[in-house]
Amino acid sequence: MSEAVPAKEAAALDAADGLAAKRAGFDLDDGVVYLDGNSLGALPRGVAGRLSDVVGREWGRLRIRSWEESGWWTAPERVGDRIGGLIGAAPGQVVAGDSTSVNVFKAVVAAIRLTDTGVRDEVLVDAATFPTDGYIARSAARMTGCRIRAVDAADMAREAGPRTAVALVNHVDYRTGRLHDLPAVTAAVRAAGARTVWDLCHSAGALPVHLDAAGADFAVGCTYKYLNGGPGAPAFLYVRRALQDRFDSPLPGWNSHADPFAMDPAYAPADGAARGRVGTPEILSLLALDAALDVWDGVDLAAVRAKSLALTDFFLRCVEAYVPRGRVESVTPEAHGERGSQVSLRCAAGPAGGAGDVMAELIRRGVVGDFRRPDVLRFGFTPLYTRFADAERAARVLGEVLEGMQGR
Amino acid sequence: MSEAVPAKEAAALDAADGLAAKRAGFDLDDGVVYLDGNSLGALPRGVAGRLSDVVGREWGRLRIRSWEESGWWTAPERVGDRIGGLIGAAPGQVVAGDSTSVNVFKAVVAAIRLTDTGVRDEVLVDAATFPTDGYIARSAARMTGCRIRAVDAADMAREAGPRTAVALVNHVDYRTGRLHDLPAVTAAVRAAGARTVWDLCHSAGALPVHLDAAGADFAVGCTYKYLNGGPGAPAFLYVRRALQDRFDSPLPGWNSHADPFAMDPAYAPADGAARGRVGTPEILSLLALDAALDVWDGVDLAAVRAKSLALTDFFLRCVEAYVPRGRVESVTPEAHGERGSQVSLRCAAGPAGGAGDVMAELIRRGVVGDFRRPDVLRFGFTPLYTRFADAERAARVLGEVLEGMQGR
Repeated sequence: MSEAVPAKEAAALDAADGLAAKRAGFDLDDGVVYLDGNSLGALPRGVAGRLSDVVGREWGRLRIRSWEESGWWTAPERVGDRIGGLIGAAPGQVVAGDSTSVNVFKAVVAAIRLTDTGVRDEVLVDAATFPTDGYIARSAARMTGCRIRAVDAADMAREAGPRTAVALVNHVDYRTGRLHDLPAVTAAVRAAGARTVWDLCHSAGALPVHLDAAGADFAVGCTYKYLNGGPGAPAFLYVRRALQDRFDSPLPGWNSHADPFAMDPAYAPADGAARGRVGTPEILSLLALDAALDVWDGVDLAAVRAKSLALTDFFLRCVEAYVPRGRVESVTPEAHGERGSQVSLRCAAGPAGGAGDVMAELIRRGVVGDFRRPDVLRFGFTPLYTRFADAERAARVLGEVLEGMQGR
Repeated sequence: MSEAVPAKEAAALDAADGLAAKRAGFDLDDGVVYLDGNSLGALPRGVAGRLSDVVGREWGRLRIRSWEESGWWTAPERVGDRIGGLIGAAPGQVVAGDSTSVNVFKAVVAAIRLTDTGVRDEVLVDAATFPTDGYIARSAARMTGCRIRAVDAADMAREAGPRTAVALVNHVDYRTGRLHDLPAVTAAVRAAGARTVWDLCHSAGALPVHLDAAGADFAVGCTYKYLNGGPGAPAFLYVRRALQDRFDSPLPGWNSHADPFAMDPAYAPADGAARGRVGTPEILSLLALDAALDVWDGVDLAAVRAKSLALTDFFLRCVEAYVPRGRVESVTPEAHGERGSQVSLRCAAGPAGGAGDVMAELIRRGVVGDFRRPDVLRFGFTPLYTRFADAERAARVLGEVLEGMQGR
């Protein structure tokens, strides 16, 4: 196929894209195709100005008064509610703060404590999980007298049984981009009498998530990927409203106390989402995230999802058009219902190097994806700022790089 | 005593102050006397510019490349070493990140795991501890089959016994400003066969701390008070080098893995301080702290301590000169060896209101300290930017407020 066909098609698709105007809300240079927003989202334009005000005025001028006057103290719940709006959680159930790992610990321990651990002593983890979830789940199990069983996330629904206390599942697999069926798995795990903890790192902001509607028990996720909150931006924790009163955190820091400034030696947990807090929140990172979330104003996640699937479909067709046959193989499911917002291409080592070398060369040529050992090229599609023309260029440059490396 | 005497003395003391030039490194307005740097340190001038570069260039332009190229990945250890230099820790033992509460959890659990919990099942906590330490220690004890015993920090040395696994002690009491004897308590707890976890929130940056020399086992602390790292700036964790190989964290996130990007389902802990990491660090807050630490370049902590004591001595004398007799009573020890870098005045309710009202009126008149229930006025002295003239003015305004409230 000639180069002109996909390029023309890309132009037409971009012209018809209802989200195209959103790209102007980000600081992007057209010289680079950035397909790594599933690792670190691009910078929303509003962040720098907001952070400058937070530093210069709120911290520099108001200082300690800002905990009240600038709303710092309640920012974890306020930002949590904004995230909640993007993951199908009604207000009052999401709190922002800490890292995803720390939130996995809170959620898994709390889920175990909601069951009769004498009977249910098994923590199911997704065998292909992002490693930290598994490490932390193992620690949670160790500290509560449970044990871990790793199962394929696709089998989670039928693996949950009478011994299962909790199932920890990644909504979208970080490596393959495979999307799991959150409503079905949640229902099956619940039917087995167990709790779910969903890791939404690769779905929050990438596609509609309906936590409340699905009856999910707990969820965690990061905000620096599709939510563009900045490097290491605070993670979030969702605790379903019906469970909040029984949410027994293993990290009951003073920020989760019912009356933090009473400085009471006895712990009494706060009601609601604040019970998921621990220590003093990292305000600069948290308010950068708050500013970053402004780009979602007026965005319909169904439109995001439609564009995401159109982008990944189009990218896969361009790869087929440009890349020497047999050189790469998609490990991301074809079926829309099983696909997140990325495309992962397995790329076996060729005469001039492996997938790591291919990605390094792509980056040198202005196409930024990432490499996951041992042989995966990962391309993230972030519908708020990725254009069809970017998808076309990425595939074209990938084809050139692989042709070049074959020839060398 | 006439007003002129302390004011003149203040001017002389400021003129002779070897640290006076440091004040220019902070963004301060002379209209306000800020004596709440023991709650939130003032803004160092270098922070805004650095953060603007981190946001605009490192995140905005380099994006994902900054994890390597801008040194984001290793920032927790790098910043940790800078903090280490201020608390008597040789490089490689301190890591920055998470909150103090989360770090207390890591340290107390790890300390318990270093002992034979079958025999040593007691966690000693300072009865007057900042509450979060007690809450978290109780959770750590609950999850490891131990129990908590609250004792007066001054008695910690003789309370540690054959059942003690670990003693968690605040170096300086947040309410009274009382300084505890870190070397002596550390030696006594060690002699009893137990471990120490020191909370340095109110001593790091306020006075010399000699963790290595004292043989302290673990330490934690925040960086938003005397270290001026910004609201909710990342906390730190110190693990003595000799214990690092046996440091068994209850929060083994992927950032603490020996090879994080291997994405290995099996956990293998990193060597050194990195083992204390958990998830992805909140980079914006962390690099603001990094920039804030520049103000310590060339500062001798012995000089900081000397000025701190001179400031608190002088403030107490001014209070005596200006405040109606019997209206306030210092709960901060007189002895230098037992005093941190704050003065806490108990202020019983008078005809026109209690200590909370007094502090509110002080703040209205440009003297910012804070109020700790039920009856404590707390004034923090931060030698890098507090002047003797500030101490004089604070005491003078306090006297005026109390006279005024008496008269009403």
